[in-house]
Amino acid sequence: MKEINGGVTAAAGFKAASTAAGIKYKNRKDMALIYSEKPCRAAGTYTTNLVKAAPVKWDKEMVDHAPFIQAIVVNAGIANACTGKEGDTYCEETAKAAAECLSIPSDSVLVASTGVIGMQLPMDRIKAGIEAMIPVLDESLESGTDAATAIMTTDTVKKEVAVQFTAGGKTITVGGMCKGSGMIHPNMCTMLSFITTDLAISKELLQEALSEDVRDTYNMISVDGDTSTNDTVLLLANGLAENPEITEKNEDYQSFLEALHYVNEYLAKKMAGDGEGCTALFEVKIIGAETKEQAVTLSKSVITSSLTKAAIFGHDANWGRILCAMGYSGAQFDPEQVDLYFESAAGKLKIIENGVALPYSEEEATKILSEPEVTATADIKMGEATATAWGCDLTFDYVKINADYRS
Amino acid sequence: MKEINGGVTAAAGFKAASTAAGIKYKNRKDMALIYSEKPCRAAGTYTTNLVKAAPVKWDKEMVDHAPFIQAIVVNAGIANACTGKEGDTYCEETAKAAAECLSIPSDSVLVASTGVIGMQLPMDRIKAGIEAMIPVLDESLESGTDAATAIMTTDTVKKEVAVQFTAGGKTITVGGMCKGSGMIHPNMCTMLSFITTDLAISKELLQEALSEDVRDTYNMISVDGDTSTNDTVLLLANGLAENPEITEKNEDYQSFLEALHYVNEYLAKKMAGDGEGCTALFEVKIIGAETKEQAVTLSKSVITSSLTKAAIFGHDANWGRILCAMGYSGAQFDPEQVDLYFESAAGKLKIIENGVALPYSEEEATKILSEPEVTATADIKMGEATATAWGCDLTFDYVKINADYRS
Repeated sequence: MKEINGGVTAAAGFKAASTAAGIKYKNRKDMALIYSEKPCRAAGTYTTNLVKAAPVKWDKEMVDHAPFIQAIVVNAGIANACTGKEGDTYCEETAKAAAECLSIPSDSVLVASTGVIGMQLPMDRIKAGIEAMIPVLDESLESGTDAATAIMTTDTVKKEVAVQFTAGGKTITVGGMCKGSGMIHPNMCTMLSFITTDLAISKELLQEALSEDVRDTYNMISVDGDTSTNDTVLLLANGLAENPEITEKNEDYQSFLEALHYVNEYLAKKMAGDGEGCTALFEVKIIGAETKEQAVTLSKSVITSSLTKAAIFGHDANWGRILCAMGYSGAQFDPEQVDLYFESAAGKLKIIENGVALPYSEEEATKILSEPEVTATADIKMGEATATAWGCDLTFDYVKINADYRS
Repeated sequence: MKEINGGVTAAAGFKAASTAAGIKYKNRKDMALIYSEKPCRAAGTYTTNLVKAAPVKWDKEMVDHAPFIQAIVVNAGIANACTGKEGDTYCEETAKAAAECLSIPSDSVLVASTGVIGMQLPMDRIKAGIEAMIPVLDESLESGTDAATAIMTTDTVKKEVAVQFTAGGKTITVGGMCKGSGMIHPNMCTMLSFITTDLAISKELLQEALSEDVRDTYNMISVDGDTSTNDTVLLLANGLAENPEITEKNEDYQSFLEALHYVNEYLAKKMAGDGEGCTALFEVKIIGAETKEQAVTLSKSVITSSLTKAAIFGHDANWGRILCAMGYSGAQFDPEQVDLYFESAAGKLKIIENGVALPYSEEEATKILSEPEVTATADIKMGEATATAWGCDLTFDYVKINADYRS
């Protein structure tokens, strides 16, 4: 497997377009369209929030029941969440409008929205946006990159990636794009992520691969602990690589899993590292755990601790807050057995041994914590299980962005 | 029942002292001593964090097993948490030092610490502090107020309250003081709270009254979702009011519960409203719930949502974030049945009806949200149960305080 340039248009037969539809933002692109020449098998995972945005309900219904999927319409600015029956209708209208322009069935069109909760979509602008995007649909990498830029909200950088691997003698491409960067928390976030591949694979295995990998990637990140109403990961496979269709968990399936994991982990880390207002990606590894579940609980508790996040912003080796966050996580461990390390491009330092501070150099610790990517590793010495979670620091800008977001 | 002036020295027989021991802060008082002329029955509740500070372990042991309690030594600046066996020894040494000076048994002395995790207490200064406080022990209200000031860390105001009621023809006084204001989250916080009363009551009922009331008061507040290693509430009763001892749940017991609840709720709300960096007390009421547990889960989820807290700081009626936080709480309800109100001294406004926004005035909503105490009430229309939780807004100063705290 190797990383290549590109995003959602990297795989054969996928085109993208974007436009400035004026949904809510001025003077920037705010709509994107992903289109596959060939009907796709689709898989999806969605927010676990009881309050589900209208597009989430629409997509789940289509992915589960429509014979195939061929397009995704995305808008930024308004989330179409908490919009009642009217909001549901707008998903159908959006799909119909795109379906008509593309001469495909309306149940083959997925929709995704991100932005403010509670406002209704301006349907005239959505429809005008779709009409404007049809003629500019293009398979170039640039079209994919433009689409990745159009779906941003408070993101500061666009997020896309692509990889290639071989299956059944054919070169397979998997590409993807996503957006964060607030309301980001395990169990899907507003977080929208779109993955495309030219792999031929059964619908069942496509969904299984996505559902499994989401647990170790998107569900292991948190920006602010708020699980959004709109979180969606969609994965389309059009089979244009012409590999022998994967229908069992063979070697080709394992290769695909590896590629999919690379793309998902890359995008998930990009989202955590571009969390609202953040200055650093904060990685927390729990090693020596008895069970994976225990390691997951502990690592997530640390990345979501406001006090720990503020300490990372301050480049302060406040290890007590990390032990504290592990302690209230609900997972069992012996605090007096814990070793803790801080690590970054600037070096690695053991801070705690068996629950008590070593005489480490605060200066060196601060140097390590001043890098843009920082890792804390806790060894709880109970077994062989591990987990890694990704978060970010809590900064003045996070507050500023979210105190002002709607106005 | 009526509120009166005072705090921990309001009840008969309780004295307090405080001093500048130089534990970590310069030029301010940082130690306090509470002393009862007469041996007390004691009750306590403690952090549920697996990582328990040394004083928490000491106090639980003494409250559970010592024949009586007569004094509490408190220091601010260093938490004596994650300090290993050495930290445990220091609790015992502190109790012994105070016991000697006061001529009481060392197992009748409780200790409490708040501040930085992981540093060892400077025992020479602790002992010197105790010696300095003995001669200035005093029953005046001012001594109580000085003690409430000495135990502050990032608190901006001292927190104390006292009430009086009648039981068995005698006037009973209940007084208390506490400190917040970071690492504040349900299930006990660094949060230290000390309640004194001259009531005569059995040890069993004293503990039961405290344990029950903590659920509706201290455990319903959150500043940042971080449950501290040091959270402690201690309640001392010395019986000097000479009421017939309460040994069953009679009318006198109900009167005491009411007084205790008033004191606890008052102090808990003061902590939430003086959360690190905060500008507003944020109260969330869930009404119309099917069960109390459901109402508690929903109300706590809203007060701990970073996005909701930032919106309150911005005086922004971003109700979508409130519905969203209810949705990911794990409690069941129908989002399309929810009515939501904002209320403060500036008025009351219905924002959502049956899950959809009403055409309310944003200007009026902002006016309501600009008050120092703001309430959001969600009616989920399923039954008769209710719960109230208290938090605060998330501000630039919260980040500033916690990025800089140790340095």
